Amino acid sequence: MFQQLGVIGCGLMGGSFALAMKKAGLVRRVIGYSKSPSTTEQARRLGVIDVAAESALLAVSGSDIVLIAVPVSATESTLKAIRHLVNPGVLFMDVGSTKCDVIESARRALGERASSFVPCHPIAGKESGGVQHAEATLYEGRQVILTPQPFTNPQLVQRATDVWSALGATVLKMRPHNHDAAFAAVSHLPHLLAFAFFQAIAEQPAARDYLSLAGPGFRDFTRIAAGEPAVWRDIFLANKHEVLAQSKRFRSALDQIEALIEAGDAAALDAALRPISEGRSAWSLPTPAVPPGRPTAK
Amino acid sequence: MFQQLGVIGCGLMGGSFALAMKKAGLVRRVIGYSKSPSTTEQARRLGVIDVAAESALLAVSGSDIVLIAVPVSATESTLKAIRHLVNPGVLFMDVGSTKCDVIESARRALGERASSFVPCHPIAGKESGGVQHAEATLYEGRQVILTPQPFTNPQLVQRATDVWSALGATVLKMRPHNHDAAFAAVSHLPHLLAFAFFQAIAEQPAARDYLSLAGPGFRDFTRIAAGEPAVWRDIFLANKHEVLAQSKRFRSALDQIEALIEAGDAAALDAALRPISEGRSAWSLPTPAVPPGRPTAK
Repeated sequence: MFQQLGVIGCGLMGGSFALAMKKAGLVRRVIGYSKSPSTTEQARRLGVIDVAAESALLAVSGSDIVLIAVPVSATESTLKAIRHLVNPGVLFMDVGSTKCDVIESARRALGERASSFVPCHPIAGKESGGVQHAEATLYEGRQVILTPQPFTNPQLVQRATDVWSALGATVLKMRPHNHDAAFAAVSHLPHLLAFAFFQAIAEQPAARDYLSLAGPGFRDFTRIAAGEPAVWRDIFLANKHEVLAQSKRFRSALDQIEALIEAGDAAALDAALRPISEGRSAWSLPTPAVPPGRPTAK
Repeated sequence: MFQQLGVIGCGLMGGSFALAMKKAGLVRRVIGYSKSPSTTEQARRLGVIDVAAESALLAVSGSDIVLIAVPVSATESTLKAIRHLVNPGVLFMDVGSTKCDVIESARRALGERASSFVPCHPIAGKESGGVQHAEATLYEGRQVILTPQPFTNPQLVQRATDVWSALGATVLKMRPHNHDAAFAAVSHLPHLLAFAFFQAIAEQPAARDYLSLAGPGFRDFTRIAAGEPAVWRDIFLANKHEVLAQSKRFRSALDQIEALIEAGDAAALDAALRPISEGRSAWSLPTPAVPPGRPTAK
């Protein structure tokens, strides 16, 4: 049981964490801060936080657990703003989709105090951001990746593991570089491709007609192109090398299929598409087992 | 009311059409043929068709409405096999996702008798093909594109319009070339990209790990990569020029976004992503109004 949770960035991720912690009975009080005072106020009105803080530092003051849920490019300035209250024994976590850059930011902003910061990436979200879409069940049944460093306080890593597990998530540990490479492949690149694809349609003279003819396949394929621009701008920039490397691999796979189409080689095209179709049919969303110790109350 | 529907190709599309026609009370009897005798037999056992025909020609004999629901590359040979029974007054339709090639096939196979053939493309489907997934409601609330030619019998075009409308679909007429260009953009290209993307992931040494970390965005983005290889092979080949032209546009949009990432230009990247995100957020699946005259019984 924590006494006070400080949430910096009361959006979908931060707000849902606050609601989940309350629902699980893991925290007495939630204090929140967002850059925009109207967001902080909205979070308070919605009951997502109990108290609105006037600064990030004030949201940390008196808290024994702090979640930083800001776009990754704002991580460093946020940590700098609170560094004087980053003390041993308080658990600091983030929710950023990239980890190498966040760890570098933490090192620069916190120096030795970075040992209190446990880098986290919950694989959860929705297309609709904002505290109004926050929900207590966002992290239930999802995976949360921790990328602790050799200098990270192991007791805090354990505490972070316990917290996410208690919220119904499965915790995995990865090296930051492996994390960033994996998510460039399965998350960042698809977002980049969906953005580029929707743009390529939207800028054609017949775009309106085309969009009026699109079906369910188009809908699902482009869903992630509605992602929050500031979030994805930051992710693409923070994980630039991995994303561009994955894009090269994609282009090469596309080249190969297009060459078969160009050549009109039906047999080879069939042979190329078949294992892909089978592979995707056999794949399903990982649904982590409910870890022991998770509260069973829904 | 039709006396007999002949279905050539008793898969998802043909089987669903048979079920829908029966449910709407528009046909007395359904006779079906598939290249594979076990499929025809399965369709009969499931009650999708009433009688199993031993050839395509026998499925046409005595029918006053015929649906050809085979992969587009098999359209020409199918029409050749039935050409002696393609008589005026009988409505022949297909369900192919490409139309220029189907019309050329019909001309070659049928000559003057091509006037009885009304090219159709219902914008409906599911990832799981096969007659076992056929359902009477597949075409309800969906769009069906007709691409009649100057030589197509206008009475049959009207009859085709009435049939699809009675099944709860909205009928649009388009020129075949416009159809093929539009669907290259909103359907064929996304399938090609999803196939290439899944392949690019699957061929990496860490593919297994990556796939175990993928989330809901990946799931939706790659759903169409599970499409039927034979169907998509045919579509890509039949609509090759349009598909490759759309792919070029996509690559150019991708190049532009990647250049901003490469340059680390956060402001320009934000400015590029924002209208895409807003455009996609504002888009939703076209849900055609229920046309008048549609049976209200569910």
